[in-house]
Amino acid sequence: MNVTTSREIRLRSRPDGMPGVDAFELAETRLEPLRDGQILVRNSWMSVDPYMRFQMMEQNHYQGWQIGQVIDGVAIGRVVESRSPEWKVGEVVSSLLGWREAYVATVEPSGKRPADRVGLQKLDTMGLPMRDFLGGLGIPGISAYAGMIRVGALKENESVLISGAAGAVGIVACQIAKAMNCRVVGMAGSDEKCAWLRETAGVDETINYRTVKSLNSAVRAAAPDGIDLFFDNVGGDALVAALANMRHFGRLVICGTISQYNVRGKTVGPYNLNLVVPKALRLEGFEIADHLDLRPQFLQDMIRWMKAGKMKFHNTVLEGIENAPGALVGLFKGDNLGKMLVRIGPDD
Amino acid sequence: MNVTTSREIRLRSRPDGMPGVDAFELAETRLEPLRDGQILVRNSWMSVDPYMRFQMMEQNHYQGWQIGQVIDGVAIGRVVESRSPEWKVGEVVSSLLGWREAYVATVEPSGKRPADRVGLQKLDTMGLPMRDFLGGLGIPGISAYAGMIRVGALKENESVLISGAAGAVGIVACQIAKAMNCRVVGMAGSDEKCAWLRETAGVDETINYRTVKSLNSAVRAAAPDGIDLFFDNVGGDALVAALANMRHFGRLVICGTISQYNVRGKTVGPYNLNLVVPKALRLEGFEIADHLDLRPQFLQDMIRWMKAGKMKFHNTVLEGIENAPGALVGLFKGDNLGKMLVRIGPDD
Repeated sequence: MNVTTSREIRLRSRPDGMPGVDAFELAETRLEPLRDGQILVRNSWMSVDPYMRFQMMEQNHYQGWQIGQVIDGVAIGRVVESRSPEWKVGEVVSSLLGWREAYVATVEPSGKRPADRVGLQKLDTMGLPMRDFLGGLGIPGISAYAGMIRVGALKENESVLISGAAGAVGIVACQIAKAMNCRVVGMAGSDEKCAWLRETAGVDETINYRTVKSLNSAVRAAAPDGIDLFFDNVGGDALVAALANMRHFGRLVICGTISQYNVRGKTVGPYNLNLVVPKALRLEGFEIADHLDLRPQFLQDMIRWMKAGKMKFHNTVLEGIENAPGALVGLFKGDNLGKMLVRIGPDD
Repeated sequence: MNVTTSREIRLRSRPDGMPGVDAFELAETRLEPLRDGQILVRNSWMSVDPYMRFQMMEQNHYQGWQIGQVIDGVAIGRVVESRSPEWKVGEVVSSLLGWREAYVATVEPSGKRPADRVGLQKLDTMGLPMRDFLGGLGIPGISAYAGMIRVGALKENESVLISGAAGAVGIVACQIAKAMNCRVVGMAGSDEKCAWLRETAGVDETINYRTVKSLNSAVRAAAPDGIDLFFDNVGGDALVAALANMRHFGRLVICGTISQYNVRGKTVGPYNLNLVVPKALRLEGFEIADHLDLRPQFLQDMIRWMKAGKMKFHNTVLEGIENAPGALVGLFKGDNLGKMLVRIGPDD
């Protein structure tokens, strides 16, 4: 395959509040011919993730993007040309060089920069669809697993509440809890999402947070005996409703707070946070980078659950790199059921 | 000793916001002559505690007081008359029959109500002042111990921040951390309290939260390398400042939130609570009732530290039961250095 140019998405401006697609721009770049120790990769699938909102900001706890910089994010593709004997044409690779159709990477000497810096690694898909390694078998999946199993210390038969239940992390978190015989209440933003959660993911009760009058009351009705474990992807009113309905010694695992990412100025904390004292609650945030040692155990459990029919994935797919900015903006509007992906190359 | 009447404090009204002394009333009651199986106790010291604010409310997570009810709270006194062979005149007892000068209790058959219901028990003071069993060796002390050692899992040489550091719980928490070779920053509400913390309790740095311009900046200046463990008695701005200065994997132990107890209507959560995710923080509340199994270990460690000169107490003492309402109101204004006590009988 002859690839000499690549389209890519760059950051054009830093949004205040909800970002629009105009914060990004599409550009085309020329790929230099390979030198020894380099490979050419064509990306097939790129990931679009809520945390990227932080990288659009100048100051935050993550590595922010520069204006004009190509957006980095996780992507999976194949080697299409190689001048390194250890990297074969056709091999599947993942990298953080996400928002570009193709790229040249220096892979020798191995273990050194710049290959390390861009997270380039070979990916053994075990015969499974490569796109799932951006979703249920990738960072969102292992985030659900680490949050439920390690941080949340989920036990069999507990009462579990999950916000953002129909998102990339949420659908896996719901099914992990069901695989452990828990009673699961899922919160999501549309009737279609709620139906999927009940019918495909086996969730016991769902709450469409956009249509209920009172989220606190809706959670109380869905889980009248209270909540042992809350897995939060949303923050804001979802966290308030959870705090109001936690059992004594309940745990609140904070994976994300997407409702807060586009708030201008200071956010407002939950008014009932003081309940952590009389209810003896534990609220704990986590970063998946601290838990990647779980990957072998995670894949083993996930494949076991998949074979048993207890773990199903769903992706929302946009086609073409030009639609990547819209995909990211759509995440904050709740356009996705399951993982939001953009296909930018052949899926084979 | 002939005791036939007892003065007591009753709840007169439920305050909205900051309580005044007019929420209480002083009354005198006649004590019935003892029957077999009863004892007469004269209280010497009564405890005044922030949690009592919740009991003034009709609906809350604690057992609220009825209007007209005698205030219950921890008190320590001596048996002055006994018609039970197992309870001798002169023995020291503690009970929850706090806000009254004397009371008759039924102690036989033992292990049954009403003795159990009022928490009546003999107290072995081990030759130590009985008043300290309401402070550093009582519930405030074991609260500090459980929060630091069990909930907070304090380790040697950590960086520790304590709010309400000059309160009954705070002074013990500070000295536990110092006994474990930690670097301690204490927040308190007066220069006098800060001086006591530095000079007597050995606290490394103090912050007078009433006089600093920015609490966040003051904590950053006092602990430039960040905080491993925050022990919170205050909530509100203290919690905000801690969140802003926690290290990755830091723990926040929430013992109390006194700044929030007199807020009318809904409180406001910390605007930077979302930092629990990127910093992977654990925030955990606790109720001392869940940790009373620690008492033997607590007393052993405390007495060891006291003998080594590493644990010193301070009490703020008002005289006479008529001053008890003012003592409680004073707690919320920060009148106390160390434990707030009211002496209502002989200290011997």
